[in-house]
Amino acid sequence: MALLSAEPALATAQRLFETLARETADPPGVTRASYGAGEAFAHGLIAAEADRIGLARRTDAVGNLYITLAGRDPAAPALFLGSHIDSVHHGGNFDGAAGVLAGLAVLERLAAAGIAPPFDITLMVIRAEEMVWFPVHYIGSRAAFGLLPPDTPDTACRSDSARPLAAHMADLGFDPGPIRRGEALLDPARIRGFIELHIEQGPVLTGADIPVGIVTAIRGNIRYRFARIEGETTHAGAVPRSHRRDAVLAGAELAAALEAAWIAREAAGDDLVLTLGEFGTDPARHGITKVPGALAFTLDIRSTASAVLDRFDATLRAEAERIARARGVRIALGAQTRAREATMDPAMRAGLHAAAAAAGIPAIDIASGGGHDAAVFAGQGVPSAMLFVRNANGSHNPDEAMDLADFAAAWQVLAGYMDALIACPAPQAPAPAAPAPG
Amino acid sequence: MALLSAEPALATAQRLFETLARETADPPGVTRASYGAGEAFAHGLIAAEADRIGLARRTDAVGNLYITLAGRDPAAPALFLGSHIDSVHHGGNFDGAAGVLAGLAVLERLAAAGIAPPFDITLMVIRAEEMVWFPVHYIGSRAAFGLLPPDTPDTACRSDSARPLAAHMADLGFDPGPIRRGEALLDPARIRGFIELHIEQGPVLTGADIPVGIVTAIRGNIRYRFARIEGETTHAGAVPRSHRRDAVLAGAELAAALEAAWIAREAAGDDLVLTLGEFGTDPARHGITKVPGALAFTLDIRSTASAVLDRFDATLRAEAERIARARGVRIALGAQTRAREATMDPAMRAGLHAAAAAAGIPAIDIASGGGHDAAVFAGQGVPSAMLFVRNANGSHNPDEAMDLADFAAAWQVLAGYMDALIACPAPQAPAPAAPAPG
Repeated sequence: MALLSAEPALATAQRLFETLARETADPPGVTRASYGAGEAFAHGLIAAEADRIGLARRTDAVGNLYITLAGRDPAAPALFLGSHIDSVHHGGNFDGAAGVLAGLAVLERLAAAGIAPPFDITLMVIRAEEMVWFPVHYIGSRAAFGLLPPDTPDTACRSDSARPLAAHMADLGFDPGPIRRGEALLDPARIRGFIELHIEQGPVLTGADIPVGIVTAIRGNIRYRFARIEGETTHAGAVPRSHRRDAVLAGAELAAALEAAWIAREAAGDDLVLTLGEFGTDPARHGITKVPGALAFTLDIRSTASAVLDRFDATLRAEAERIARARGVRIALGAQTRAREATMDPAMRAGLHAAAAAAGIPAIDIASGGGHDAAVFAGQGVPSAMLFVRNANGSHNPDEAMDLADFAAAWQVLAGYMDALIACPAPQAPAPAAPAPG
Repeated sequence: MALLSAEPALATAQRLFETLARETADPPGVTRASYGAGEAFAHGLIAAEADRIGLARRTDAVGNLYITLAGRDPAAPALFLGSHIDSVHHGGNFDGAAGVLAGLAVLERLAAAGIAPPFDITLMVIRAEEMVWFPVHYIGSRAAFGLLPPDTPDTACRSDSARPLAAHMADLGFDPGPIRRGEALLDPARIRGFIELHIEQGPVLTGADIPVGIVTAIRGNIRYRFARIEGETTHAGAVPRSHRRDAVLAGAELAAALEAAWIAREAAGDDLVLTLGEFGTDPARHGITKVPGALAFTLDIRSTASAVLDRFDATLRAEAERIARARGVRIALGAQTRAREATMDPAMRAGLHAAAAAAGIPAIDIASGGGHDAAVFAGQGVPSAMLFVRNANGSHNPDEAMDLADFAAAWQVLAGYMDALIACPAPQAPAPAAPAPG
């Protein structure tokens, strides 16, 4: 904690981490359901701190909280900081909250120093980012930009209550109307940039022994939720190999072929991860003495580059066709969903690297494998950046383990970048974020 | 049907097939539960035919039915023919019943011709062979030899009724006492041989376009019901390949390695089949966006030769250890069960081949992948043989499809062999069946 005591704004962050952990405790870990009690407590806590610091605040119709340090030119597009503050069931205290408290500490430090930046700096505390509660991604940020499907409030039900989003919004006094009308609450042209600090959800920084990552891109993905192999269920003893159409052996060959292709693409320098997260015979039909006639599986393929995804998808289809033909089975990949990658703004990345170097804080480039609200901002053409904080044991579990010293280091990079931006604002006409080249 | 009309005993068999199909119909297919109504009907039907033909019959304490054509020397060990007559749920009409009706037709033909063989010839209609009803193999034949675990009547419950075997036996007037006391009802020394005709449960005869198979051995097996791979469940997007301990990819590599070893052993001439019938991630824990941390699977390895099983088991263990080490996962094969193979008697096999050749009926050697009551007799040192009848679509399903012409061909081989045996009995001191050489 020694590192934190040097900066009063970080002491606030530490105190708020402790309050959140205590007041939203749900052992093991914390629970802050989207549009639920824990998230509401956290929003109230941050709002009260804004009042204490003397920052302006408002809440939009769908419940996102905006805390603003007023700039010298109210007509200039604002710089946004932010993240979400909901958590999964029995989650960790830092996923989401770290970005909110880092942003608050930036504002508190500038306010305490009496600095009026050239443009508004706004902390956005975003609602409902975790997809475990409602089967919809990024509810708060997408609602703010009018991007949610209009029926979402009435068709998306919360996993714990089975009640629709609209009912949970009404409980807290919010209005699903803008979502139903597809109405945007924020104008991307009025936002000069968005920066989200977040714990790393993987082991890269821990493995590299580096406290801070500067995100290059948020990976896009190609997913198949309902892939199937259909062979023939026959007698495990009486049917010779030549007469079998074994779905498990076909699936094993496909998985091995895809892993080999993954290793080859990685060796060629492509950013790529591949997961067959669900993979299995049907418990209602399989048996130890039956040749398995069917296998269901999922595929999740992610990359920071669309062209890499396209190329791997082509490999998948070619391998599936080859194996199906050779083994006399049917391989049906089923419906594909696709999420575009979000490339982080090169100028902001460069600024963050410069701030890290100036502060003597080790920082490396890193791809974000998980999705974040920053992808929504980037998709709206808002120049966006993310800082990752080293964190052990992954996220979405009570064992996530961010060291506050690492949080302080990442915050110092963010604060240094803000100082540089205030001293010398970047030109203000952002180009829409383009997909990364292949 | 033209083939059958030439032989009155085969006309009886055809009529009884039709009666069984009609009276135990349970569309699709037939249902003759072990110690249930369908099996009881079938036993009654066969007993009535024995009476019509004028053959002696008796039923033992556990319900096996014995129908005997008396021989000239009551002191000589008897030759047994037989099979079971229960079926699976919605099963086919021929699995089991074909052997019973073939045996009955042999006795009817000899009786009609007024032939008194040198030894008794006994058709044994065996109870409860299908393991779907009680979780115990070969109840009737093992009970006859005093081989069932003594608690079986009180602990083995029928899958449809959840009532114990003893209750179902009592319903039909049978006595679980001998099972509880481990008391043998048959003396293997009083049985000179056992012959079971059965439909083939695989596609080998159909594929070879041959009506009759002469079984070389009933495959033994090594089974692992509870094999597991434990890796680590992590974030499908955020964790790079080098940090993953993916249970599905480990399982795919193991399955592919075992398939390659299988192909190599087969090319070297080994009799071997391998099935990973259950193979999957845990539906309660897996997800499309999680690296799979656990995989459960089963292994069923069968061969007519113990040494082949041993060698393949060693390969399995070596591959599992290699893959576990390379991938940082744990591979636990769990408890192993083992069933010994049963080698069919060479002299009987030769006699059956000679009978087929004499009748001009194409017959080939074939391994039995499934287990049969003949394995119990062979295990008791009774020289045993099996004839397989060509059958499409496998067994244990309503689509099994034995052509009655093929049944007649196999029966003709059996009847010819019986004629030869009666004319020139084999020496009568059977050696206990030995395990096949490696």
